[in-house]
Amino acid sequence: MTGALAALTAALPGGRWSTEPSVLAAHATDRSGLPAQGAPAVVVFAEEVDDVRLVLRLAHAHRTPVVVRGAGTGLAGAATATGGEIVLSTARLNRILELSAPDQLAVVQPGVITAELDSAAAEHGLRYAPDPASVAISTIGGNIATNAGGLRCAKYGVTRDSVLGLDVVLADGSLLRTGRRTVKGVAGYDLTGLFVGSEGTLGVVVAATLRLRPVPRSTATLSAHFATVADAAAASSALTAAGLQPAVAELLDGANLEAIDAAQGTALRERGAAWLLVQTDGTGAEAEAALAEDVLTPFARSVRRASDVAEAERLLEVRRLALPSLERRGRVLIEDIAVPRSLLAEAVDEIAAIGRRHDVRVATMAHAGDGNLHPIFGYDGPEVPDAVTRAADEVFRLALRLGGTLTGEHGVGLLKRQWLGDELGEESLALHRRLRTLFDPGGVLNPGKLWSD
Amino acid sequence: MTGALAALTAALPGGRWSTEPSVLAAHATDRSGLPAQGAPAVVVFAEEVDDVRLVLRLAHAHRTPVVVRGAGTGLAGAATATGGEIVLSTARLNRILELSAPDQLAVVQPGVITAELDSAAAEHGLRYAPDPASVAISTIGGNIATNAGGLRCAKYGVTRDSVLGLDVVLADGSLLRTGRRTVKGVAGYDLTGLFVGSEGTLGVVVAATLRLRPVPRSTATLSAHFATVADAAAASSALTAAGLQPAVAELLDGANLEAIDAAQGTALRERGAAWLLVQTDGTGAEAEAALAEDVLTPFARSVRRASDVAEAERLLEVRRLALPSLERRGRVLIEDIAVPRSLLAEAVDEIAAIGRRHDVRVATMAHAGDGNLHPIFGYDGPEVPDAVTRAADEVFRLALRLGGTLTGEHGVGLLKRQWLGDELGEESLALHRRLRTLFDPGGVLNPGKLWSD
Repeated sequence: MTGALAALTAALPGGRWSTEPSVLAAHATDRSGLPAQGAPAVVVFAEEVDDVRLVLRLAHAHRTPVVVRGAGTGLAGAATATGGEIVLSTARLNRILELSAPDQLAVVQPGVITAELDSAAAEHGLRYAPDPASVAISTIGGNIATNAGGLRCAKYGVTRDSVLGLDVVLADGSLLRTGRRTVKGVAGYDLTGLFVGSEGTLGVVVAATLRLRPVPRSTATLSAHFATVADAAAASSALTAAGLQPAVAELLDGANLEAIDAAQGTALRERGAAWLLVQTDGTGAEAEAALAEDVLTPFARSVRRASDVAEAERLLEVRRLALPSLERRGRVLIEDIAVPRSLLAEAVDEIAAIGRRHDVRVATMAHAGDGNLHPIFGYDGPEVPDAVTRAADEVFRLALRLGGTLTGEHGVGLLKRQWLGDELGEESLALHRRLRTLFDPGGVLNPGKLWSD
Repeated sequence: MTGALAALTAALPGGRWSTEPSVLAAHATDRSGLPAQGAPAVVVFAEEVDDVRLVLRLAHAHRTPVVVRGAGTGLAGAATATGGEIVLSTARLNRILELSAPDQLAVVQPGVITAELDSAAAEHGLRYAPDPASVAISTIGGNIATNAGGLRCAKYGVTRDSVLGLDVVLADGSLLRTGRRTVKGVAGYDLTGLFVGSEGTLGVVVAATLRLRPVPRSTATLSAHFATVADAAAASSALTAAGLQPAVAELLDGANLEAIDAAQGTALRERGAAWLLVQTDGTGAEAEAALAEDVLTPFARSVRRASDVAEAERLLEVRRLALPSLERRGRVLIEDIAVPRSLLAEAVDEIAAIGRRHDVRVATMAHAGDGNLHPIFGYDGPEVPDAVTRAADEVFRLALRLGGTLTGEHGVGLLKRQWLGDELGEESLALHRRLRTLFDPGGVLNPGKLWSD
């Protein structure tokens, strides 16, 4: 590392790098709960695209690992340091370069906070559709690196569905432009899609052309309580079967409701062992909500339509309080599987059974509309107990057995790298290795993430 | 080729291959209008996945080129023979392997006709959203190879947006599975997206897991006539600016209307020099159409709401008659650029000016909602005249100058390979070459397509 470090610190202005232990420590982990495996050698705060190019050129020349990071809000350890590397922060590359209302697109640097882009778009009646729970603190670059999801994905897609094009610095420091400014385009391979979700292993995004969409004219919100999770899941499936497409369909199991009640003084659990929050949007929001109410009612103990936007906001706030409420009880390990939608109930029930079998606390919340489940394991003490690890392992196997995936929207990183091969299979993993080597022959981009060699 | 041919014909049942000149000729071109550059050596009609694997294994071993084709309805010459190759038809791999209504997905072989999948889905209240004009005759495999678009893309996306996973035979005959059965999933690189639109150069799709969507509950249809194309384009932009999202927004210029009038006995042209057909769908279809009517009226000479489904169907049929009507006047070269939506009017006007400058007939139809334009050049005689080629070249340069693409939905194939580098740039083209070589080190998959080495 010495060679790269000396060259870097000589070439960069003083304010753009640090080797202070406190700064290194502050940039060594994400929010996965995984500790850093070692301290980085240096943190570089890129302020220009050329800073990124310089870092990669030197890293490539000296074969020094680079871990790129945005706000460090990831949940899979993809931005976690493994020791001795250059941590390359794109947080200061935080300008919205262009926002075109007529073309419904924005060109932004990777350090732009997702919610800030959304606010800027809102001034034109537009929004950036992907809405990971971290929007207020995560960056577009991090969202792209992990192909982040959110609540509205079933209707509006994940991050990849909103990325039209990218400027990417490749491992050797060269600059690549992918994609276009048009909604449609089929000239050449889909390199844009390949970079999205590649977790810092194929290149460093330095600008993104993003699709914006109109803010829906209206929304309508339903709150439904059920005797069992199976009933709530069946109701969610019935919405799908009825051809309805809510923008939001969030399911919380009884363990979540108990935690919220305990932390917030609400009385949700007594109304049933599962809660489903449904929001429709668009010109037909009211009509679609009325249809949804009819569909939910036979399955539910109670269904209530929010009487106004304020009540809808309060309901969404309750949903958002689930994780903080669970965190009041101790530390949490947040999992993130997805299963075919028809198997949602089976997945939730099996997760609860896995928790009982290993005697660990588990609460499951789900983006019911797209079959994406977040089992939240609770534990005490600083280290993840073996029982939780074993339970999480069983959850991954469950996801694969049900024809699902071990990560619906958080990514693989360090957290799930040992399971990636189980999902992809040998043929695919081998192709992944060859692709990664093609983009990064020196092996400097986030080594050890996604899989370990 | 002799070695591969001998091995192939020895290994395959007699009914699965042919060297008959008439069969070779019938499988040597697509609908681009480009003639075959030479006769294929053999056409193989794969009936099992193992047939595909055998062909690729032998082709790889003998370094014999393979051109894979579905129904041959492509418009870019991607399935056009260049002489002496194995043409591999997947048309007989035509089974719908699974259709799951609860999970809103289908698993199909590549030879399934797109409209047949849509019909099968309709029995469950579902549909396959991508709707290229060729749905009745094109195959899913061909749609995937070209990432086919259609009328509904602005709202429902292109083919890639409906592909969840693929089974692909790689150049060496090995079998790769990509993607998943879930709506969401971020484990590993987006190989699925990479294969979609790769025009037979990265592998051969032998099965696809496709997303189905509910058939919208209702539709509402508007027919608007305008004094000028600029007015129609401004009206279309105003729909976008108003936050409306029609499922269909088709624009025909005056030359199209004249051709339809001449061929069908209608009187469209006298109502204005541009026509816009708008269809909204979903629970809010009526409300959205009412809003759209208000938006269009200030720009239009007339706006009429279709009174029933039958009238709406007749209007869509008129739109579909545009190309056949132009074809009554002589041969056509169908182009396919896309531009940022705000530049639609400028693009249509410029295309007309290019036609005048080169003294060639050109009519432009556009999927106005996503800025995808089809300039249709008319000519007489068997060969494309130089003036048309020069005009098409100017159209591509126009697309790039406006920040657009030289192909919105048809692909590159042979037809546009000479321009691909202009759009992608050297850095990207070089990466494309390396990727292609990674997937196909022997260079057997559709050599000479996309770009020529």
